[in-house]
Amino acid sequence: MTVREAAVERWGQFELSLAGPQEGNPYAEQELKGYFSKDGHEVSVRGFYDGGGVYRIRFMPEQEGRWTYRTESSAAQLNGHTGSFECIPAQAGNRGPVRVKDKYQFAYADGSSYAPFGTTCYAWIHLDEAMQKQTLATLAEAPFNKLRMCVFPKHYAFNSTDPDCYPFVKKQGGGFDLERFDPRFFAKLEQRISDLQQLGIEADLILFHPYDKGRWGFDAMESSSDDYYLRYVIARLASFRNVWWALANEYDFMEEKHMTDWDRLLQLTQEEDPYAHLRSIHNGTKMYDHASVVFYDHKQPWITHLSVQHWDVTMPPIWHREFRKPIVVDECCYEGNLPQRWGNVTGEEMVRRFWDIIARGSYCTHGETFADENDTIWWAKGGKLHGDSPERIRFLRTILETAPENYKPIPEIYDVPTIGIEGEYYLQYFGIHRPAYRIIELPEGSSFKAEIIDTWEMTITEVEGLLNGTSRLELPDKIYQAVRLTRVS
Amino acid sequence: MTVREAAVERWGQFELSLAGPQEGNPYAEQELKGYFSKDGHEVSVRGFYDGGGVYRIRFMPEQEGRWTYRTESSAAQLNGHTGSFECIPAQAGNRGPVRVKDKYQFAYADGSSYAPFGTTCYAWIHLDEAMQKQTLATLAEAPFNKLRMCVFPKHYAFNSTDPDCYPFVKKQGGGFDLERFDPRFFAKLEQRISDLQQLGIEADLILFHPYDKGRWGFDAMESSSDDYYLRYVIARLASFRNVWWALANEYDFMEEKHMTDWDRLLQLTQEEDPYAHLRSIHNGTKMYDHASVVFYDHKQPWITHLSVQHWDVTMPPIWHREFRKPIVVDECCYEGNLPQRWGNVTGEEMVRRFWDIIARGSYCTHGETFADENDTIWWAKGGKLHGDSPERIRFLRTILETAPENYKPIPEIYDVPTIGIEGEYYLQYFGIHRPAYRIIELPEGSSFKAEIIDTWEMTITEVEGLLNGTSRLELPDKIYQAVRLTRVS
Repeated sequence: MTVREAAVERWGQFELSLAGPQEGNPYAEQELKGYFSKDGHEVSVRGFYDGGGVYRIRFMPEQEGRWTYRTESSAAQLNGHTGSFECIPAQAGNRGPVRVKDKYQFAYADGSSYAPFGTTCYAWIHLDEAMQKQTLATLAEAPFNKLRMCVFPKHYAFNSTDPDCYPFVKKQGGGFDLERFDPRFFAKLEQRISDLQQLGIEADLILFHPYDKGRWGFDAMESSSDDYYLRYVIARLASFRNVWWALANEYDFMEEKHMTDWDRLLQLTQEEDPYAHLRSIHNGTKMYDHASVVFYDHKQPWITHLSVQHWDVTMPPIWHREFRKPIVVDECCYEGNLPQRWGNVTGEEMVRRFWDIIARGSYCTHGETFADENDTIWWAKGGKLHGDSPERIRFLRTILETAPENYKPIPEIYDVPTIGIEGEYYLQYFGIHRPAYRIIELPEGSSFKAEIIDTWEMTITEVEGLLNGTSRLELPDKIYQAVRLTRVS
Repeated sequence: MTVREAAVERWGQFELSLAGPQEGNPYAEQELKGYFSKDGHEVSVRGFYDGGGVYRIRFMPEQEGRWTYRTESSAAQLNGHTGSFECIPAQAGNRGPVRVKDKYQFAYADGSSYAPFGTTCYAWIHLDEAMQKQTLATLAEAPFNKLRMCVFPKHYAFNSTDPDCYPFVKKQGGGFDLERFDPRFFAKLEQRISDLQQLGIEADLILFHPYDKGRWGFDAMESSSDDYYLRYVIARLASFRNVWWALANEYDFMEEKHMTDWDRLLQLTQEEDPYAHLRSIHNGTKMYDHASVVFYDHKQPWITHLSVQHWDVTMPPIWHREFRKPIVVDECCYEGNLPQRWGNVTGEEMVRRFWDIIARGSYCTHGETFADENDTIWWAKGGKLHGDSPERIRFLRTILETAPENYKPIPEIYDVPTIGIEGEYYLQYFGIHRPAYRIIELPEGSSFKAEIIDTWEMTITEVEGLLNGTSRLELPDKIYQAVRLTRVS
């Protein structure tokens, strides 16, 4: 028995390693649970077999102070271990897991604001080590604080990489042994989640996806295997504070699954995860037809927020009214020049969608898809970024992060998407519209500073003088402009 | 009794003028009908009082040959007139009224193609004569073949013109006498419809609209006055071959009307018009929210086509599936720089919407709304055009008019909007998408010429060599490109 004696910071990771039986199939045959207690409050977590006779229990303490624990197991060797550790305050850079704050926003568990500015590298952990390091180096310099990434490998256009290992081990004679996990794979995945954590990036982990088409069969496992996989993943990963559960990508394209499967899997995720990490499910859709967008019923209590695919930036207010949960438009087309419609918008258009969506009180996610001789495309494999949008997304992030904390969409200003706090602060975005001027009406007795933001040129120009009452604000006769109004008295 | 003895061309206008009673209110008190016969086929048309003791019956013959007529009236003076005239073949430039051809297209009555390329001058006939002449001079040089225009004057932003006369005469002491029409007004309107006819422009005549707000009260008349007005308008104007009946603009913004009113008025229009001119009704809507678009039930048999307001160019295929009638997106925002969201898109965006809508088998309408010191804005008053889009719309019109006559949308090509004829001709538009290349799959054994069309620069570049089978077509890494594929063998 090895116990890390060091104190664990709040939202850090405590790990208990135990030697146990190796015979048979320990993944399937042994049950191990840890019970962590403090002040009469107990949290139960599932342990897992990590190969080589080693079992582990991981725990993320959410309160400071002295925690005690005990184990229960079907195996005598693993049963009845007890101990304790001290949970100390979170250290710099650790603000805990991201939670839903209200209908519109997210926040870290320590109460500080978190606005998702995500990007997408679906299969990056399935590339070679050098490429993964390159991706991490790029992310270290990029403006993103969330990464959409898959557990299972991906078989899709521009991506036919066969990884060196898989969540499951291969069977002799072909196929996978869906009862035995591969600890090497999970060690790699955990390393990457830790790396992202170091960079302040949330791992929006896609647990199932349709990009398989019979190559490995992970999109068409039996329900029992899906559940078995899910329990193991959660047992291993839930104690990483930066994990989000993205149950599936383009779930509606997975022909072997039914809606009842998604209900069950989402509920299982909710049950198995002691920390209630964010849970979402992402739709696919035909690109042409609003009617063909099939959203999961996001009113279900086991869904924390919307992680949707849609190209119409005017939709979020409608979804807010219906579902009353924060919205991340995780796919709205990517900056690039692929033949595929989802992967060939300009940097201007990518940035416009970010602004248009954020100015409606929602969030948008980046991806990059430039045709490349070697098919090294960021959106699938990571690597380097080439586009024009990340710099502008950083500019937008800076602006949003200096907005008052509790900003909301202001639908009363019906003609220009606007977020802010009535009477205090307004950030409005004109997008493809280019008014020569705007009549601004401000509350009586107040004075506002006005700034004109060129979202593409990344300039902020303060308007001379203060605005009061009803005034006419001259605007540049250009697209991609925003106005920021801040009350000064 | 005066009869124009000259032969009348097919779809021309025969007019019979009769002297009749002037006492009382002849508009309301006298009934006059004309019955026109040829080969046992009879058409009944309503006559109308034109002031000064003159009554008129107008008739548009739709078949060549000898027509005879007789009159019936409540007034002895007007009753029992008979006569005949010769209907000769249509002369150059006269192709008859525009009809619905099929689910997607319109055609002139002579069978030749008509694709609407409209513009908008809502209140142009209410301006002074010099200004109207200016508008006509502009239209003579512009690429448009349809004009959206109102009968009633317009009270709205940037337009507070009080016209010199109205459909109804003023009452002494204020207000209008809703039982007495003003023939001066109708003479002017008819002159303008004729002027448009000379220019080959269809008059998409808006019979009711909400831009009044108590100033004149024409948006809030009693049902009986609405019907009375409609009968008179149709009696006077139906014989102009280039008239379309646009029952209302933004009908859903007319608070004094109910859906049953629109049903009744549309059915009345259908009954009163012997020639079955096109009939539509145009929705208003909040700009932000798809859910707030309230379409009239376009499945009703008294609606010939959709004349809609919407800003989402991807919607037409959905409406086609539902309503199975040709679609004109008569408002999708205007080129300009007004503060209002509907009036401040760029020329690029206006042209993009035209292409995106036309490439989905529908039609789009132009408007121009540049802020102007004197509030002389094309969309309301006519005058001159200043924008960048008309020239590009002309370019597009040329391309569409050289497409094979029976082109249709090809939804099987799901990723890029495409019209054409399968195996023969494809016109596809990439819009804001900028693929670096496209994989083209053509029917076996065929060869196609490929052209790359820069819709903004107005260039057509033929690709070297012919395409066969599956080929990779390199595209410029630019937005606003189209591809035209024409079978050569």
